[in-house]
Amino acid sequence: MELKNNMRSQVLIDALPYIQKYHDKIVVVKYGGNAMTNNELKDAVMNDIVLLSMVGIKVVLVHGGGPEINAMLKRVGKESKFICGLRYTDEETIDIVKMVLCGKVNKELVSALQMHGGKALGLCGCDGQMIVAQKLTGEVDLGYVGDIKKITTKPIIDALNNGYVPIISTVGIGEDGQSYNINADTAASRIAACLRAENLILMTDIVGLLEDKDDESTLIPTVNVSEVPYLKNKGIISGGMIPKIDCCVEAVRRGVRKTSIIDGRIPHSILIELLTNEGIGTQFI
Amino acid sequence: MELKNNMRSQVLIDALPYIQKYHDKIVVVKYGGNAMTNNELKDAVMNDIVLLSMVGIKVVLVHGGGPEINAMLKRVGKESKFICGLRYTDEETIDIVKMVLCGKVNKELVSALQMHGGKALGLCGCDGQMIVAQKLTGEVDLGYVGDIKKITTKPIIDALNNGYVPIISTVGIGEDGQSYNINADTAASRIAACLRAENLILMTDIVGLLEDKDDESTLIPTVNVSEVPYLKNKGIISGGMIPKIDCCVEAVRRGVRKTSIIDGRIPHSILIELLTNEGIGTQFI
Amino acid sequence: MELKNNMRSQVLIDALPYIQKYHDKIVVVKYGGNAMTNNELKDAVMNDIVLLSMVGIKVVLVHGGGPEINAMLKRVGKESKFICGLRYTDEETIDIVKMVLCGKVNKELVSALQMHGGKALGLCGCDGQMIVAQKLTGEVDLGYVGDIKKITTKPIIDALNNGYVPIISTVGIGEDGQSYNINADTAASRIAACLRAENLILMTDIVGLLEDKDDESTLIPTVNVSEVPYLKNKGIISGGMIPKIDCCVEAVRRGVRKTSIIDGRIPHSILIELLTNEGIGTQFI
Amino acid sequence: MELKNNMRSQVLIDALPYIQKYHDKIVVVKYGGNAMTNNELKDAVMNDIVLLSMVGIKVVLVHGGGPEINAMLKRVGKESKFICGLRYTDEETIDIVKMVLCGKVNKELVSALQMHGGKALGLCGCDGQMIVAQKLTGEVDLGYVGDIKKITTKPIIDALNNGYVPIISTVGIGEDGQSYNINADTAASRIAACLRAENLILMTDIVGLLEDKDDESTLIPTVNVSEVPYLKNKGIISGGMIPKIDCCVEAVRRGVRKTSIIDGRIPHSILIELLTNEGIGTQFI
Amino acid sequence: MELKNNMRSQVLIDALPYIQKYHDKIVVVKYGGNAMTNNELKDAVMNDIVLLSMVGIKVVLVHGGGPEINAMLKRVGKESKFICGLRYTDEETIDIVKMVLCGKVNKELVSALQMHGGKALGLCGCDGQMIVAQKLTGEVDLGYVGDIKKITTKPIIDALNNGYVPIISTVGIGEDGQSYNINADTAASRIAACLRAENLILMTDIVGLLEDKDDESTLIPTVNVSEVPYLKNKGIISGGMIPKIDCCVEAVRRGVRKTSIIDGRIPHSILIELLTNEGIGTQFI
Amino acid sequence: MELKNNMRSQVLIDALPYIQKYHDKIVVVKYGGNAMTNNELKDAVMNDIVLLSMVGIKVVLVHGGGPEINAMLKRVGKESKFICGLRYTDEETIDIVKMVLCGKVNKELVSALQMHGGKALGLCGCDGQMIVAQKLTGEVDLGYVGDIKKITTKPIIDALNNGYVPIISTVGIGEDGQSYNINADTAASRIAACLRAENLILMTDIVGLLEDKDDESTLIPTVNVSEVPYLKNKGIISGGMIPKIDCCVEAVRRGVRKTSIIDGRIPHSILIELLTNEGIGTQFI
Repeated sequence: MELKNNMRSQVLIDALPYIQKYHDKIVVVKYGGNAMTNNELKDAVMNDIVLLSMVGIKVVLVHGGGPEINAMLKRVGKESKFICGLRYTDEETIDIVKMVLCGKVNKELVSALQMHGGKALGLCGCDGQMIVAQKLTGEVDLGYVGDIKKITTKPIIDALNNGYVPIISTVGIGEDGQSYNINADTAASRIAACLRAENLILMTDIVGLLEDKDDESTLIPTVNVSEVPYLKNKGIISGGMIPKIDCCVEAVRRGVRKTSIIDGRIPHSILIELLTNEGIGTQFI
Repeated sequence: MELKNNMRSQVLIDALPYIQKYHDKIVVVKYGGNAMTNNELKDAVMNDIVLLSMVGIKVVLVHGGGPEINAMLKRVGKESKFICGLRYTDEETIDIVKMVLCGKVNKELVSALQMHGGKALGLCGCDGQMIVAQKLTGEVDLGYVGDIKKITTKPIIDALNNGYVPIISTVGIGEDGQSYNINADTAASRIAACLRAENLILMTDIVGLLEDKDDESTLIPTVNVSEVPYLKNKGIISGGMIPKIDCCVEAVRRGVRKTSIIDGRIPHSILIELLTNEGIGTQFI
Repeated sequence: MELKNNMRSQVLIDALPYIQKYHDKIVVVKYGGNAMTNNELKDAVMNDIVLLSMVGIKVVLVHGGGPEINAMLKRVGKESKFICGLRYTDEETIDIVKMVLCGKVNKELVSALQMHGGKALGLCGCDGQMIVAQKLTGEVDLGYVGDIKKITTKPIIDALNNGYVPIISTVGIGEDGQSYNINADTAASRIAACLRAENLILMTDIVGLLEDKDDESTLIPTVNVSEVPYLKNKGIISGGMIPKIDCCVEAVRRGVRKTSIIDGRIPHSILIELLTNEGIGTQFI
Repeated sequence: MELKNNMRSQVLIDALPYIQKYHDKIVVVKYGGNAMTNNELKDAVMNDIVLLSMVGIKVVLVHGGGPEINAMLKRVGKESKFICGLRYTDEETIDIVKMVLCGKVNKELVSALQMHGGKALGLCGCDGQMIVAQKLTGEVDLGYVGDIKKITTKPIIDALNNGYVPIISTVGIGEDGQSYNINADTAASRIAACLRAENLILMTDIVGLLEDKDDESTLIPTVNVSEVPYLKNKGIISGGMIPKIDCCVEAVRRGVRKTSIIDGRIPHSILIELLTNEGIGTQFI
Repeated sequence: MELKNNMRSQVLIDALPYIQKYHDKIVVVKYGGNAMTNNELKDAVMNDIVLLSMVGIKVVLVHGGGPEINAMLKRVGKESKFICGLRYTDEETIDIVKMVLCGKVNKELVSALQMHGGKALGLCGCDGQMIVAQKLTGEVDLGYVGDIKKITTKPIIDALNNGYVPIISTVGIGEDGQSYNINADTAASRIAACLRAENLILMTDIVGLLEDKDDESTLIPTVNVSEVPYLKNKGIISGGMIPKIDCCVEAVRRGVRKTSIIDGRIPHSILIELLTNEGIGTQFI
Repeated sequence: MELKNNMRSQVLIDALPYIQKYHDKIVVVKYGGNAMTNNELKDAVMNDIVLLSMVGIKVVLVHGGGPEINAMLKRVGKESKFICGLRYTDEETIDIVKMVLCGKVNKELVSALQMHGGKALGLCGCDGQMIVAQKLTGEVDLGYVGDIKKITTKPIIDALNNGYVPIISTVGIGEDGQSYNINADTAASRIAACLRAENLILMTDIVGLLEDKDDESTLIPTVNVSEVPYLKNKGIISGGMIPKIDCCVEAVRRGVRKTSIIDGRIPHSILIELLTNEGIGTQFI
């Protein structure tokens, strides 16, 4: 980039109030979507997280891995089966889920962050019994899909205190030792709440919440969580947005200062969200 | 068991000098073989480790997982290929190795230890760049089979200090971010040396080193590492025993007080080795 | 003992849940009776305490020393005088009591524990003003027999934190510097309460509380402290048992989880009480 | 500035390797010249320092104050007298120097940094006997101009550890309690050396070292300290540059990794020097 | 002094109960008047403070500097202007006040204390935003005379914890960065209250509070703060005594155990006040 | 005492350089002789030690107790038997020695110090295996008289760090658990050396070392340890002085800065020695 140095320094100085705001605070990032599959975007995310760590922000990375799970299931000749948007998870599936999330995706993220100069520790919900889960109950039986019963923050806090970025696979553990598949948005929301995070950022493949879903110029930049029921009634929050926004609302209700749904397709969307005056996507407060 | 209380207390008291000996010391256990596949033996191992932690011994568990890797490779229709006893590891294979070791075997061990009342943290060589590796060079190209370049003990020490039993998958990480398959015996040996462990225990499916390999009554209980070349010449150490015993020798040479090859097929073999006056198998000093 | 190793390891594993239960907890042992005069029993007690320390239990040993005091009084030609079971303590007597308890019994116990591999520090109620006392008032004047006014736990906590088993002679100190003879059961009970101990164990020369005092098969294993008045009314708790059981009740009321009257004549009775599923004697909860 | 967010984030990411390089390192900045008299430049310097603190760089600010001293001397009707470029400092003058440096300039800098969101502590060489001095000896008597005898880093380190940017007036203290006027460049150089600083930055009103002093395009970006004698011989280093560059050489010789003479007339010159790939002015290594 | 050693040791022993009383406690001394201008008295004060530090008393020294400010104002040809006993402080004056207090008086005290073997750190209200002030409002405009809005004790506590005697100039800092002239008695009173000091000592040039202001034999040694209104009504507290005694009352009301107005003209008046049974002057409790 | 306050404060100030000299240093006092039997002197010693603790000097008190041992032996009808000035110590005697020293003298000193406002912890050589001893070998068999084999300073350092004055009875402990009677001067000397004490003070009933033993005006105030052989040859050091002075020499040789033989019959001799410019008795350097 052919920016002159005076512009470069001005940009850094412009970021100062944001750095001061988040200094020594915890920010939980739910990583997923295109930002995870596109290599260039992935690179940008890793750079963002290392930079945030360097300027004193305590980042916790929570990730999913749906596409890689599907690919592996396919490879072993097992069909992916979804009920109401949730993966039906039989014994064979939970095994594959664990292997792909904890053994492949997680460890690749750990390596990637370290290749960019960060220090990372890969954890899953079993480690130190971080995510204690139970079978999700409901009208339909989803197999080993779990509901979070309790979050143990100690392994996360330990990792942060020891100077690592904790990278978390959301496989939960039942009190009987059974593994459960936990929705990553839900887990990120609960973890953020238990850590009393300053911010929860959900990376998605959409622009944000739109008044008119076909017109990106109708982006709603800020939603007060008390307005959510009204927005649902009006149909502005609908379909796949509902569970995601419920995670946002839940996190804010449990004490997270702010949660943001950001457009992960934009490079450095995390930096733009945290360190500029524009923000990006829709924030829930 | 219908032991009377006076016998029970006597047994506990008999263990006291051994507990005092290992108190606050690090013991590295390489877990593998039947002790890992047989459920009853596995249960006993977990109990042993929790007990050792409780009496103030710092246990580090290093595991392999050959049979599970083979099963998974077979499941995805990929043949296991071995050259001179080492797995040929192409890109597809290293992926499966990582998934099975870090995502399945490791996390199952973490859960199992916690089901027995312990606190565990699952780590692999990528986490905190614990096992930095490079391609193993030699006459034959083995693909992504790695040689250990450097051990970073910080993540292990952190885990111990935070009160966890670290459970380690021996996947290494190259300086370019490439994952490598590392022999678990070798990794355990190097980790023990870098941690200045008091003891390295290799669990195997044999009685120990036998003078006459067909006669278990010829077990050699103690070998001084300086005698190893002689024993190799005589053919007493031969075949698959060679690399395993080389790990023992290497660990002792680098400062581990003692390494033991024990018979993992005997329940509670770790306890017997550490907390009784008999020991079990062959020790190298 | 010709126990096989598999039985040995099973015994150790059987003790695991008990070790976990008391790990990092404080247990106060009032040491006295035959367990203190019989050399074999004494040996067993020392072994028990060293073992308990090793497995992470914080033991505080409180001792009396009646027989040795009597012997010394006799030796200097002074008659032991008891009123209602309490020693009449004139100036000459309190001097002998101090010398025997703090100078002889205490220091012998410190040496004995250290001969068994433990680390011990001998303390009395004067040290760091641990047991502040005042003259016991009542119908009869007992001389320098004291009532506990205040326990300063700092010297005990310091000793535990510095890695010692504190061994305590129950000589108290008045605010005017006068020494007082304090009943060891009472002192142990108050110390246990102030330390918020998990368990107070009183070693005695009886089997426990019996429904029929002539029939050991009528042992009452557990008494809820609320039942004590009823048991006194029925005469089941009577005579010399009354003050001892009052100590138990008082400790439980002030927050000790459990107190036990155990039969010190049985070797390793402390281990049996703490680390087996049988217990021994009568516990008050 | 109308920079787009993607450019903003790119600038931040471009700064990352530099932030990583200086993270947790000490950088000593000698502040003076136009950057101190021009309000806009002063503002930029304060912003730079607060930003550097936020990203984990430990900044120590050393300042002079010649123009303000001259103004005050003039105001009290005292002529400024210079011998070979050094201020002749009689008793009346050293009093004015102290008042202006420690009481006016220093405290205004403390306030200014705090107005920009930093935390600052103003110190002079007397505080905690930080700069122990003695009368400068030489051909001419310069009065209370001092030579540094010893630097006590404790007050500086304490301030850094307590979270402050230390701002230092270079008034020294003799062992007899006499105050001395110390050249700020010299003091900054010695302080940087004693703190084992990563970098010493001298802010000046020149572009840097020029091969042809009348042609700014002949800027020498890097000088190895071993080349300085040659550059002096050739007359490239001459006049007022000599003592300044001697400070650079001295600092590098005593262990500072790098010292830079930067052009303080350029806004954010410190940021450009530390956090961009261009640097600015001349660096001595 | 020709005192015999037995008398010397007796004097030391007599001081013991007072040393024990103030051990590890904070004592704030407002230094001013003759004790600050007379060299012999100044010497004695420095000795007292070093001695008090050595015996474990945490001394905080707060100073004014009226005479030196007047001298400097005169020197620059500026008239000192007082309204109702308070200095009218225009922009030029606040500049002189800062220079004299923070640059001259403060640093001379730091040097003096260190010449007597102490360790000192000079601070003013700007450092670490210790004294946040705002313009004093009232009937008359006094210019930059400030009212204390908030005391930040961190820089004082840090200095004490790092082993220094903090010496404080009472220049305050507005939230807009403006400096304010703060009355030193008021500042000492508020600082003592915020530090929860054991004692606040105001050094003056009077004997103490007299019932008959012309008769020193009518000294009132102790005043309960509740009696102050009555003493004001009776005219016993009047004139310049009123603001000083209001500071005492305010400090006691906000939690300082005792404040004393002592006669700074008596050598070692601080020692006599703190370490003898007589005290000196008038104490408010 | 009718000293005026100005003299009192002068005395305190005169002590300042001495307090500074010993601040945070360890001083070992061997307590014995008249200073221990005379109540007034004892009171003065206790006051001295509390004062020294308060001014930051770390005092360790080592005591003997010959007269009280003799009295007790007599009381139980056992004759005291001395060989070459050393007590023949049979099994009965070592028992009495322990009881008197550890149970009576030690605990009375602990109480006395606390009655004067100090905090004390009574220890003997068994506690934490502080004084490991072996049978003293020589021409004559002295029974359980011991020779010091090793000093474990941990219990002493722990006591100092926890804020107590350690008061030490010099009963040693053999590796077989046997108690030994250890000469208190010797023990004090070895303890001072192992603690790297600044000063060892031996309290005696003599004025010091005299050139003419019948003329107190010939006191030798300072002896360099290298002169001791000469002084022995000349007969100036003779008789009972020899072992005492050998302890002084030994301590200095092992690194104690200075040892002093002081006249314990003078009240506050310790204070005079440590905190005045005269000193008292003879010092060995």
